[in-house]
Amino acid sequence: MNLFYSNEINERNKEIFLKDQEHRHLVKSLRYDINEKVIVTDGKGNRYETKLVLKQKNESKLKIINKLSNNTKKIELHIAISPTKKTSRFEWFLEKVTEIGISSISPIICEHSEKKSLNIIRAKRILISSMKQSLQTYLPKIHEPTDFNTFIDNLSKGSINLIATNKIDFNPNPYSDFAGRGNTVIMIGPEGGFSEKELVIAKNAKFTAISLGDNRLRTETAGVACAMLHNLTKK
Amino acid sequence: MNLFYSNEINERNKEIFLKDQEHRHLVKSLRYDINEKVIVTDGKGNRYETKLVLKQKNESKLKIINKLSNNTKKIELHIAISPTKKTSRFEWFLEKVTEIGISSISPIICEHSEKKSLNIIRAKRILISSMKQSLQTYLPKIHEPTDFNTFIDNLSKGSINLIATNKIDFNPNPYSDFAGRGNTVIMIGPEGGFSEKELVIAKNAKFTAISLGDNRLRTETAGVACAMLHNLTKK
Repeated sequence: MNLFYSNEINERNKEIFLKDQEHRHLVKSLRYDINEKVIVTDGKGNRYETKLVLKQKNESKLKIINKLSNNTKKIELHIAISPTKKTSRFEWFLEKVTEIGISSISPIICEHSEKKSLNIIRAKRILISSMKQSLQTYLPKIHEPTDFNTFIDNLSKGSINLIATNKIDFNPNPYSDFAGRGNTVIMIGPEGGFSEKELVIAKNAKFTAISLGDNRLRTETAGVACAMLHNLTKK
Repeated sequence: MNLFYSNEINERNKEIFLKDQEHRHLVKSLRYDINEKVIVTDGKGNRYETKLVLKQKNESKLKIINKLSNNTKKIELHIAISPTKKTSRFEWFLEKVTEIGISSISPIICEHSEKKSLNIIRAKRILISSMKQSLQTYLPKIHEPTDFNTFIDNLSKGSINLIATNKIDFNPNPYSDFAGRGNTVIMIGPEGGFSEKELVIAKNAKFTAISLGDNRLRTETAGVACAMLHNLTKK
């Protein structure tokens, strides 16, 4: 089964348009025919059964036949994570957390971050492709990179706020004590870890220090571990 | 810090030899000097502080100064998993589970396996390299590929035996009910899943069906999820 993604869904007219990559994937790579059935998601938990009615040069038009909504209320997970030095490792993180389930991703630039930027367009493309391949209907939000302090300053209230560290001065609790208990924000540092100063700022902002076991996990592995435990831990 | 691996450790003579890749890494890539301190693991939980005493063409000789043993008794995890069609995905699995912690890996050829073989020499190299990079002192065992039936027939007794499936006929329990409870064997199928016949064979061999949530996880993601939950779930 192939799943397509569109953010141009007109439920009133029962029309969906596929453009750019999605259009090319449908028409050029997979060579769908007029009247063939096409499954589309809006990345917000809905799945549409449609048929292809019009192929044009730059877009294709689909007619909605049926709508299936996923109404299970999800416990949200927002991971704020430093970009890794090697881009492929961060991209792997994006692919895996989409497959497992995550609501938002914030790239954060920390004192020890070796990489200070991220190609957001490419990152979005990976999220869409991973969502399609794993037949998910939720597309994670990815934010523009911000620095550590700005991220903490702009955080909205009401979530469980955690920061991953193995520094014993900060008394980290096992993450499994918190995993999946409610809407959660987790901050994950670069390979060099968070600086002492950053950990104090987070502590003052009422973040709880958590640990992911004794092993030294890479940044991207820690991110994936958090998403897995959030989704798979017994509530 | 750099960690080296050797299986030629002579504690009586306080000597360690590095050969092949490890020797080249020490002498050619990192250009260690005579008398410089070298940290070595035997992949069995021990770490040796040594100094380099002799560089030769094909090997280097180290003198043991100190030995540090990791005596924490681990709960063993043995994952039997189908090779994936794309080799890089399986290699990623090998890298990640070593980083997180696993005892043994058995590649199993199932009815729906698209790939029926595995380059074991290359796989071992990945395990060693991942162990070194994550500064672990345990090297997972990797077995030669076997077919599904042979694997089940040769299984020794006394472990918690689980098989991952989402087929509702087999009433899978959430994996989190079992994670990390004792020495465990988990079977993970290829992209197409286990066949009905295989699931019946496993059931007759007293395997318990487990599920890793509602999302369709790729083979290698399921493998990594099992290792993460095994190690990080609250006991």
